[in-house]
Amino acid sequence: MVVAGAGFGGLWAARTLAGSDVDVVLVDRNNYHTFFPLLYQVAAAELVPTDIAYPIRSIFRGTPNVEVRMASVTGLVASERRLETSAGPLRYDALVLALGSEAHFFSVKGAAEHAFALRWMDDAIPLRHHVLTRFEAAAASRDPLERRRLLTVAVVGGGPTGVEFSGALAELVYGPLLKDYPGLDADEVQVVLLEAAERVLSSMPERLGAFAAERLRKRRVEVRTGVRVEEVGPGWVRLAGGETISTDTVAWTAGIQGDPAIRRWGLPVGRGGRVEVDGCLRVRGHPEIYVVGDLAYREDANGRPLPQVAQVAIQQGRYVGKAILRHGPGGDAPPFRYVDPGMLAVVGRNAAVAHVFGRTFKGLLAWVLWLGIHLVWLIGFRNRALVLVNWAWNYVTFRRSVRLILPGARAGVLPPHS
Amino acid sequence: MVVAGAGFGGLWAARTLAGSDVDVVLVDRNNYHTFFPLLYQVAAAELVPTDIAYPIRSIFRGTPNVEVRMASVTGLVASERRLETSAGPLRYDALVLALGSEAHFFSVKGAAEHAFALRWMDDAIPLRHHVLTRFEAAAASRDPLERRRLLTVAVVGGGPTGVEFSGALAELVYGPLLKDYPGLDADEVQVVLLEAAERVLSSMPERLGAFAAERLRKRRVEVRTGVRVEEVGPGWVRLAGGETISTDTVAWTAGIQGDPAIRRWGLPVGRGGRVEVDGCLRVRGHPEIYVVGDLAYREDANGRPLPQVAQVAIQQGRYVGKAILRHGPGGDAPPFRYVDPGMLAVVGRNAAVAHVFGRTFKGLLAWVLWLGIHLVWLIGFRNRALVLVNWAWNYVTFRRSVRLILPGARAGVLPPHS
Repeated sequence: MVVAGAGFGGLWAARTLAGSDVDVVLVDRNNYHTFFPLLYQVAAAELVPTDIAYPIRSIFRGTPNVEVRMASVTGLVASERRLETSAGPLRYDALVLALGSEAHFFSVKGAAEHAFALRWMDDAIPLRHHVLTRFEAAAASRDPLERRRLLTVAVVGGGPTGVEFSGALAELVYGPLLKDYPGLDADEVQVVLLEAAERVLSSMPERLGAFAAERLRKRRVEVRTGVRVEEVGPGWVRLAGGETISTDTVAWTAGIQGDPAIRRWGLPVGRGGRVEVDGCLRVRGHPEIYVVGDLAYREDANGRPLPQVAQVAIQQGRYVGKAILRHGPGGDAPPFRYVDPGMLAVVGRNAAVAHVFGRTFKGLLAWVLWLGIHLVWLIGFRNRALVLVNWAWNYVTFRRSVRLILPGARAGVLPPHS
Repeated sequence: MVVAGAGFGGLWAARTLAGSDVDVVLVDRNNYHTFFPLLYQVAAAELVPTDIAYPIRSIFRGTPNVEVRMASVTGLVASERRLETSAGPLRYDALVLALGSEAHFFSVKGAAEHAFALRWMDDAIPLRHHVLTRFEAAAASRDPLERRRLLTVAVVGGGPTGVEFSGALAELVYGPLLKDYPGLDADEVQVVLLEAAERVLSSMPERLGAFAAERLRKRRVEVRTGVRVEEVGPGWVRLAGGETISTDTVAWTAGIQGDPAIRRWGLPVGRGGRVEVDGCLRVRGHPEIYVVGDLAYREDANGRPLPQVAQVAIQQGRYVGKAILRHGPGGDAPPFRYVDPGMLAVVGRNAAVAHVFGRTFKGLLAWVLWLGIHLVWLIGFRNRALVLVNWAWNYVTFRRSVRLILPGARAGVLPPHS
């Protein structure tokens, strides 16, 4: 069988099947698994990519029944049970589609061209380089308006990613970056969080959202709620009502969707580009195709769509692995039930908000909870101690070398090295 | 005054002047200093870039008389005391040129197009990605000849860099990489070291060269001496005599030269594109221009050119800094004298050769010596403990995540993420 995608959903499906007598081919366009919940820390130069990425082949070293291939998935012919990839077609008896989601810019003009998404490693590294090179350019500029534009970062979307990223960014720019650039003034620097709803973290209880906003403001993030972005251009973002913010850096965390290319595969694609699945996470009419994670559309008992978060993907991946082992590919299994462990968001070092097991936590306690949960999950990997120590080390010590502007930067201030 | 280049020479010149009443502008095209002696370990996926690079601004945080600018040096008008950069012209009363060197392909056809240099971070990262993506491609190929070509790496040049890189590469490919690719056979993998002279490490005593070659062979590196590369093409390298080696990966460590663009600046450029300097490292006719490091050409008391190694650059950088402090820019100082601490080369984990203080060491003892010397030098940085611990940690533990194929890879097996 084939597992397409080595994010949380695909990885856990394959891990559940590892060591069994089912032959699994795991395909991903990268040779590494990304620990997405910490991706924003790479963009904020708090962690290096290697801290949150792990070679897929190393994870499946000891389990010869899982074969890893690095290839992009380019198509699916369900009637012939064939997955098309950049490395040729793959035939399957059963397929787990775990291709995740990508940024959704809705129909905001210019957003796809001028805003930075924050979904993949390929997004986070250019964003980090972009912010750092803006500071370099500002240090070399004597035009106050230009400096202001270079030193303003707009984060669109006040969900967990937007809150976490703007908090981390404020720590970076008002901390080590300003120290590195003695010629720049803290008052020239601006981090703006733009949220269309009336409050941030609308998926969490109201008091947690209020706490997060207050903490962000304390860290000098300008939190603006009830503002809708209408257009993004080169060097500016325009809000509904006509106000324009002059900024070279717009980070987009306001929405995600399934890869639009999947609409052409003939699957039942619904809201948000997600594939509708039955209780066993199978595609109607194609019981041999399972969909898990962000790409799957399934409602809970109350008719609410399952959220597109790591926990859902992990539980679905494990569920499908077990269903295949116990009931055979495409077989009827007891339906998937999501056990919601709650939600967490970090507002910065030593402060977080958490809504777990029906209770709310905030401040240092929530942060320790967040730390503990992430460490436990990181520990799920082989060679766990390494990842753990590196991560803790870098996180706690503000490793400076993370702020390198390395090759691969988009829109750098410099011409490429000749 | 202006210091152009933040390699060893420029960095140490600026550090020597830091805290004095001399205003220094330090220009580099990168925002980080590279610890070049360990660059090959980045290419061999033993270290991540951040382990051997350090943000220049952080080094000069506490010394306001040193201003850091990120810009490429594009020209020099010595008669007007003006350095041209990508961020505009810089006027100087005194100038320290410390622009280093780049790969010299001599007139070997196709080498500049098809071989990977190993001089800068911009070279090391693509080379690492290239090797890793070749393994991915080989795992997906069923053609034995193609697999062989993909899994063969030719290292041209048996000097310290070639010896160290081929040793580290052998450790990578026969160790963790083969474990990651159970479908590949050790006999399909090949690391070939090609040296035109009759032995490797010709700058060191003969018995050390012999020891290094023997150790490399033990680690399955095919050491070939007395072979000259005549041409490099896409997928092959042709030797004098007509023999062709089928390989997708040619790493070039056989020569360096000063940036050819410098020849147009009107300075006395001699052998190897190096600028001739007087005993005080000043350019004849322009005593306000100092040249240090790889770019400077100066002979020792025996008429031999000073080697292009880190130690020479560091000592020259310090010398120029002190000369300017004590005798004023362009003033006559006692001439520079190089104190040769010897040479070291690592053949792999736990084995090295060293020629220091007139004595030779080899094996584990030389390796410990090498380790100690590098640690002492790395400790020369601010925030020393961090760099040190990270480095030692990664080095000793074979950090796996270094083997990620991240954005920015050249000639990857995959189309760019759309």
